[in-house]
Amino acid sequence: MGTTAAEKNPHTFTHEHLLGLEYLSREDIETVLDNAEGFKSTFDRTIKKFPTLRGKTVVNLFFENSTRTRTSFEIAAKRLSADVINFNVSTSSVTKGESLLDTARTIEALGSDIIVMRHACPGAPHLLTRHLKSAIVNAGDGTHEHPTQGLLDIFTMREKKKRIEGLNVVILGDILHSRVARSNIWGLTKLGANVRVVGPKTLIPRGIEQMGAEVCYELEAGLRDADVINILRIQLERMASNMFPSIREYRLLYGLTVERLAFARPDVLIMHPGPVNRGIEISQDVADGEHSVINQQVTNGVAVRMAVLYLLSQAREHARKAKGVDIEL
Amino acid sequence: MGTTAAEKNPHTFTHEHLLGLEYLSREDIETVLDNAEGFKSTFDRTIKKFPTLRGKTVVNLFFENSTRTRTSFEIAAKRLSADVINFNVSTSSVTKGESLLDTARTIEALGSDIIVMRHACPGAPHLLTRHLKSAIVNAGDGTHEHPTQGLLDIFTMREKKKRIEGLNVVILGDILHSRVARSNIWGLTKLGANVRVVGPKTLIPRGIEQMGAEVCYELEAGLRDADVINILRIQLERMASNMFPSIREYRLLYGLTVERLAFARPDVLIMHPGPVNRGIEISQDVADGEHSVINQQVTNGVAVRMAVLYLLSQAREHARKAKGVDIEL
Amino acid sequence: MGTTAAEKNPHTFTHEHLLGLEYLSREDIETVLDNAEGFKSTFDRTIKKFPTLRGKTVVNLFFENSTRTRTSFEIAAKRLSADVINFNVSTSSVTKGESLLDTARTIEALGSDIIVMRHACPGAPHLLTRHLKSAIVNAGDGTHEHPTQGLLDIFTMREKKKRIEGLNVVILGDILHSRVARSNIWGLTKLGANVRVVGPKTLIPRGIEQMGAEVCYELEAGLRDADVINILRIQLERMASNMFPSIREYRLLYGLTVERLAFARPDVLIMHPGPVNRGIEISQDVADGEHSVINQQVTNGVAVRMAVLYLLSQAREHARKAKGVDIEL
Repeated sequence: MGTTAAEKNPHTFTHEHLLGLEYLSREDIETVLDNAEGFKSTFDRTIKKFPTLRGKTVVNLFFENSTRTRTSFEIAAKRLSADVINFNVSTSSVTKGESLLDTARTIEALGSDIIVMRHACPGAPHLLTRHLKSAIVNAGDGTHEHPTQGLLDIFTMREKKKRIEGLNVVILGDILHSRVARSNIWGLTKLGANVRVVGPKTLIPRGIEQMGAEVCYELEAGLRDADVINILRIQLERMASNMFPSIREYRLLYGLTVERLAFARPDVLIMHPGPVNRGIEISQDVADGEHSVINQQVTNGVAVRMAVLYLLSQAREHARKAKGVDIEL
Repeated sequence: MGTTAAEKNPHTFTHEHLLGLEYLSREDIETVLDNAEGFKSTFDRTIKKFPTLRGKTVVNLFFENSTRTRTSFEIAAKRLSADVINFNVSTSSVTKGESLLDTARTIEALGSDIIVMRHACPGAPHLLTRHLKSAIVNAGDGTHEHPTQGLLDIFTMREKKKRIEGLNVVILGDILHSRVARSNIWGLTKLGANVRVVGPKTLIPRGIEQMGAEVCYELEAGLRDADVINILRIQLERMASNMFPSIREYRLLYGLTVERLAFARPDVLIMHPGPVNRGIEISQDVADGEHSVINQQVTNGVAVRMAVLYLLSQAREHARKAKGVDIEL
Repeated sequence: MGTTAAEKNPHTFTHEHLLGLEYLSREDIETVLDNAEGFKSTFDRTIKKFPTLRGKTVVNLFFENSTRTRTSFEIAAKRLSADVINFNVSTSSVTKGESLLDTARTIEALGSDIIVMRHACPGAPHLLTRHLKSAIVNAGDGTHEHPTQGLLDIFTMREKKKRIEGLNVVILGDILHSRVARSNIWGLTKLGANVRVVGPKTLIPRGIEQMGAEVCYELEAGLRDADVINILRIQLERMASNMFPSIREYRLLYGLTVERLAFARPDVLIMHPGPVNRGIEISQDVADGEHSVINQQVTNGVAVRMAVLYLLSQAREHARKAKGVDIEL
C-alpha cells in the first residue's frame, strides 16, 4: 500500500508531530491524503491489518470527552497493530491536581511512542512537544486546530470532486469557536481552494480574511456557486451566551434545508463533522440526502488517521537513523 | 476445533445476525451449542486463541451498564483475535442528543464488522439490521430477548444433563420483566424441554402459555419433578412498584432455600444468570451448594459467545462468496 | 532476555501470587529485579514485545481509582502479548451489592489467568488466593502493601546506586497510612539497606522499629547520611483529620526543599511514587532537579511488572508440570 502512495508522491514527510495544518506544506498535506487513499483501498479486505506499529504504544490522552474521535484513533492505531491505551483523564491523577506536563511525562515514562491529545487550551500539544520525546498528535486544542478533522474533510472533498484547486468551499456556522473551521481554512487555502465562511456576524472572528477566507453574513449569497458546504455543529451549550442567536433564529437564518441547497451548485457536497443536530444547523432530509457524505467522512477519518500515525512514525525512524542510532529488531 | 463441531453437526448456520432465539431453528441452536462445545474444549490449553476474527472489529455498544456481559463478549472476541472497541455510550455523543441510528451508523462508518448491542428498547437491534451492513448481536433488548444468555443456559443444561429433550425446566421469579426468561422459553421449547414458569401472579405475563410454557404461581407445586431450576435475578429497583411483593414477602414465598430444593428432583441443577442477590431469590447455601452451576454458566457464556461470533462471521463469508464478491487476503 | 537474567541468577521463583514483599525472600526479590533489568534493556528496541503471555488473560480489577498503576500493568501485560481486560468496578455489579468474592469468581469463570487487584481492605488479595485458581497480584490493599511499587523503588535504587546492601534509605512522610512505606521497609531490610522513617509523630505507627526501621521525627537529623530519600505523597483528603498538621505546617517542617537536600549525602537520590504535590511534600526544583528519578521510577515500574507477570506465570507452569498436567499447545 505504501508503495502506491510513494509512487504517486515522492515527497518525504519529515514532521514528527502533527500540531496543525498551519504548519504543513501543500506537499505534506498531499502526502497524507495519498497515503490515506492507499489505506482506504484496503478497507474492503477481509483482513485490514498492517504490522506498521507493532510493539509501539499509542496513548489517547483526552482531557475533553470525545468518544467518536478517540475511537477513530483507536481503530486506526489497532489496524496498524499498535498497543492502544486510553488514558481516562477524569478518573486520573489530574483530578488530584497534577499538572498537564506531569501527566504527560508520566505517560511518556510509561512507554508511549505516540500521544494523541485533546485539550481545552490552544497550544497544549505544542507544549508537550517541547518537553517530551513522543510524537504528539493534536486531536483538538481549544478553538485552535483539529488537524485530522481538517485532513479528513479535505480528503473527502478530493475523493468526491477529484481536485481541491479551484473548488468553492463554504464553511457554515459558528466559525469563531471552531477548530474544525480553522484547520479547514489552513489546509484548503494551501491546496488552492476558494474558502468562504458564512454565519452570523457575532460568530465570525474579525480578521479571518487574513487567513485567506472570504466572509459572508448572509446564507443565500454565501452559498452561491458552492461546490462543498461544510456545516459546523452548533454547540447548544453556547446558545446561552449573548453573542449567539436563539436556536429558532439560527435555524431560520442559517439552517440548511433542501430548498436552500438550490443556492449552491447542483452537485454540491454536504459535509458535517458530527454529531449532527438534526433540524437545527441541518435538516433531516439534507443530512440523509444524496449530497451528504457525512458517514463517508467518518470512514475517511480512520484512513487519514492511519496515514498520520504511519507518516509520523516513519519520519521518526528516519530521524533516528539519520542520528546514527542503531535500530535493533 | 471447527472440524469436530462440523462432523457432529452437518447443519449450515445461515443467520447473519443474532436477534433472538425466537428466530432460530432447533438445528441452528444445536449448531451453536456444538460449536460452543468445541471452543470450550480448548479452555484448558495454555494458548486458547484462534485467528478466526483477525483484522475484524467487534464493537460493544451498550446503552445499559453490564460489565459482566460486555466483558464476556470482549473476552470471546479477543480469543478469536478480533480488535474490540468498547463504545461507552454514557460519555458519547448520544448524551448530546444523537439518535440511536446516527450512533450506529457512525460506528459502522468507523469500520465495525460486528456490533454487540444492549438497549432498553425491545427491537432496537432489529432496527439496526435494517439500516447497517454489520452483523448485529442482541445482548439484551429491554424485556424482549437476551439470546446469548438463553444459549449459555441451554448449553449448561445439555452439558450437565446430556439432553434437553424431555427435561423439566423451571424458570423462577419475575418472568414479566425478564428477557432471560423469554430467550430460555423460546430455545428450550424448540429443543423439546418442558418449561414451567413459577412466580407471583403479578409477575407472570398473561398468555405466556402460548409460548409453550406451563404456569404455576406456587413454589412447592412449581418445583415438582424439576431437573433444572433457572432462578431469575430480582431487580431490587422494581420492588417499589405495586405489582411487586416486598423483599421479605418474596423471599418467604419464592426464595430458594435448601429445604425447598427437596420439592425438585434429587439431582436438580441450580442456575442463575447473576449477579446473585444472596438471601433474597436464592439462599447462600443453595448458591454455593453442590447443585449450583452458576459459575460454570459464566465460563460457558464465553464459549457460546465465541461460537456465535464465529458462526455469524462464517455465514457472512458464505453470503459474500455466494454473491460473487472476491475475498482478498 | 530471560537467559541473561537466568544466567545472573540461578534462583527459582516459586510464588504463584504476589501479595507483598513480606512474603518474598531476598533471593526472590533479587530474581524479580534481575528479570526486570532484562526487560528494561529491551525498551529501546523498535519492537518491545514478547510472546510470553500470548493467549493469557490479565484482568485489572481496581476497586480504587488509579489510572497510573492500572495503566502500568496494562502496558506491561500487553508487552507480554496478554489480552488485558479492565474490569471497571464502579460501573459493575459490585454496585448492585455483589460481594468481592462473587465478583472475583465471576472474573475467574470468564477466563482470567492473572488478576491484578487493588482494594481498600488489607488482605483482600489474600482472600482471593484462597478461593481462586488465578494468579493474584496485589496492586495495593488498603494501608497494607503495594509490592510492585516497593519493587520498582528498590529496582531504581539498585540501578542508580549499584547496590542495596548498606544503603541509607529515608522514607519521608505519612508512614502510618502508607502501603508504599510498608512494602519498601520489608524489601529494603531483607536486602540489607538501613531504613529510617521520618515524619510527624502522629503519622508514624508505633512499633515500626520491629520491622527493622529506625525512627526519626525531625527532618534535619532524619536526612543525615541519606543515600536515598523516598518521599511519600501527602493525601490531601486526610489533612482534615486531627492527627495531621495543616498543609502549611507540614511543608514548613517536612517539605523537601533544595536547602534541606544539603542535610543528605551529596549524591542523594530523590524518589516519589507520584503523583507529586509540588510545593507541599516536595518543592518544584527538587522534583525536577538533578537528584530526582521520579520519571525513571515510572518507566522501571513497567519493567518490574513485566518481570512479576512473567515470573508468576513461569512458576505456575512449573507447578502445573510438576503435578503431571499435560501442557497442550
